[in-house]
Order: sequence, then C-alpha cells, then structure tokens
Amino acid sequence: MLIDQNVKQFVETTASNEPVPGGGSIAALSGALGAALAGMVANLTVGKKKYVEVEAEMAKLAEDAAKLQEKLVALIDRDAVSFDDVMKAFKMPKETDEEKAARTAEIQKGMKYAASVPMETAETAFEIMVLAEAAVERGNTNAVTDGAIAAMMGRTAVLGALLNVRINLGSIKDEAFVAEMTKKCEELEEAVQKREQEVLAKVSL
Amino acid sequence: MLIDQNVKQFVETTASNEPVPGGGSIAALSGALGAALAGMVANLTVGKKKYVEVEAEMAKLAEDAAKLQEKLVALIDRDAVSFDDVMKAFKMPKETDEEKAARTAEIQKGMKYAASVPMETAETAFEIMVLAEAAVERGNTNAVTDGAIAAMMGRTAVLGALLNVRINLGSIKDEAFVAEMTKKCEELEEAVQKREQEVLAKVSL
Repeated sequence: MLIDQNVKQFVETTASNEPVPGGGSIAALSGALGAALAGMVANLTVGKKKYVEVEAEMAKLAEDAAKLQEKLVALIDRDAVSFDDVMKAFKMPKETDEEKAARTAEIQKGMKYAASVPMETAETAFEIMVLAEAAVERGNTNAVTDGAIAAMMGRTAVLGALLNVRINLGSIKDEAFVAEMTKKCEELEEAVQKREQEVLAKVSL
Repeated sequence: MLIDQNVKQFVETTASNEPVPGGGSIAALSGALGAALAGMVANLTVGKKKYVEVEAEMAKLAEDAAKLQEKLVALIDRDAVSFDDVMKAFKMPKETDEEKAARTAEIQKGMKYAASVPMETAETAFEIMVLAEAAVERGNTNAVTDGAIAAMMGRTAVLGALLNVRINLGSIKDEAFVAEMTKKCEELEEAVQKREQEVLAKVSL
C-alpha cells in the first residue's frame, strides 16, 4: 500500500513516471494532513485550564477530525486503484457487436466509479473546513496558524479532488450523471473557497 | 527523522499533541508534494513522440523539480527542530543582570532562526509555481490536473510557511529584521496567490 511507504519514498514515487500516486492520492493526503492539523489543535486545547469552557467541544472536534483523517488516509490508496476497472474493461474483447457493447458498458461503469472516488475525497475533505474554523476561533491560540494551515490543506484537497472528478466526467456518456456531478463540483468549489477565506480572515498575526 | 515514518504514522503523529510535526513541517511537505507532482508531469512528458518539441524543457523541469523537492523534504525535519535553540535559551540562568541579558540575546537569536526556516520553505515552495505553470501549459495534457494540484500544494506551502514566519516575528524585537521579513511575507503572499490563479485559469475541463 502507498501509505506504508515512508514519507520520503512516497514523495519520490509521486515524482516518478509510475502511474500512482497521482494528483487524486495527493489531494486525499492533503485532506488527511488538514484533518490531522485540525485534530492537533483540538488535542493541544483539551486538558488546558485556560480552555476549560471549550473542553467538551474540542474533545468532540478531535474525534471528528480523527474520523475524517482515517477516511482520507484510506482514500490515498483507494484513489490509486480507482482506475483499475477502467483499465481492465479496455482489455475486454471487441470483435462482435455484443462484445463491443459489453466492453463500452464496463468502461462507462468503471469511469463512473473513477469519478466517484475523488468526489468522496472532496466531500470528506470539505468537512475539515468546519473543524478548522472552530479550531482557529476557539482552540489553543498558540496553534492558530496550524488551524489556518488545516483549512488551506482542506481547500487544496477539495479543489484538487474535484479537478480529477471533472477530468473523468469528460469520458462519461450518462448526461444525467454528468449534470449531477458537475453541479456538485460547482457547489463544493464555491463553498470551499468561501469557507477558506472566512477561516483565514479570522487569523490576525 | 519524521520523514522516515510511513505516511499513515506521519499523519497520526501530526494529529497527536506531540510538539512536532506542526504546521511548518506540513507546509514543507505540501511543497515537497507540489514539486513532486510538477516533476511527475514532466516525467510523463519526456520520451513521448507527441511532446518532442518540449522534450528538453521538460527534462530540465524534472531536474529543477527534483531539487526543490529534495530541499523541501529536508525542511520537514528542519522545521521540526527550528525552535530547539529558543527552548534551550529559555532554560538559561536568569539570576544576574548579565545572565538575563545573555539569555534574552540567545532567545532573540533563536527566534530569528525559527522565523528564517519557514521563510526558506516559503521561498523554495514559491519556485514550484513557475514549474507548475510550464507543466500545465506544455506538459502531457493527460496530467494537466496534476500540474494544477502542484500549484495548489505550492500555494498552501508558501502561505502556510509564511503564517509561521509571521507568528514568530511577533516575538522579535529587532525592528529592522521584522520590517524586512514582513515586507517579504507581503510580497510572497500576493505573488503566490496571483500565480496560482494564473495556473488554475489555464486548466479548462
């Protein structure tokens, strides 16, 4: 698995002309790191006298962040294999009309799946924004920049994953599916940009 | 070293209340991943007939990206120890006036160093933007989203590192140093936002 590589190796494998990890896995990792930073701010807040009033909120924030982090870490590897079904489908026989139709159907099914994985990354990473905002507003002020960086990593995860959704939509013929996913892309893109600006505006240094 | 941890562990250590890695290391990692993605686009372009006209440019781009990547990978761990001198200085004796003066001087020296490390991360990561732009404009079009994600990871690296510069500047008494670093922060922040928007505007999906 990609996530078993050490950090240095993982970066080096990314740079190579190996097919994976690509931008989709990097988007998921960016999200995982964003969730981890939001969780870190919460963990640096819990147990501190000065922050006793937000103790319960921060304990819950740390838990929520850990769940997002776990999902996003898994998405690093899930994204790397999201195209496997498409590749398999391309190798199906295409002699007869029946074979051609079966092959096209499998390719289309695979492409939809390949678009749905980065959509899941984007939707999961979007949830970081609420956590980062709470961390910046009410978390340990010594870690305010960490909360801000969490929001930026989350934004990059969402926008990066959605670019991969969009490029895959280009090969999908189901117009209703494409329309629905495109609408989701537009909504998430706009929302995450707005959210990130709101979080960053709360950091005054 | 942090970079010897596997990806999953590294993310988990980030989330914990361990002092490192914090946002500065994550910013450096974001930069390293951005450089790696720009390099990947170049490596997926070199050797392809269709891109023979940009072969030399892309080979050079891959080399330049590898250098930035190496520097930024090293900065993950360098950032994690950047505060060590400050922590040591805080433990110096402060009985006599002489001791107090020596201690203050060492703390100030350490703080300047702690601000200079994320500045190096920011300046190094900023160089990704030119590479990402070339990758998106002239690299393998199949990897255009990877070039765009490289630009976003670079932007987050620059802005994230600069937040850490700014928070450290708050403890530095040398006004000329603070003024110079603040000016650099403002220039880099504006430039990287502009650059990122330019790169993303070139991606039409």
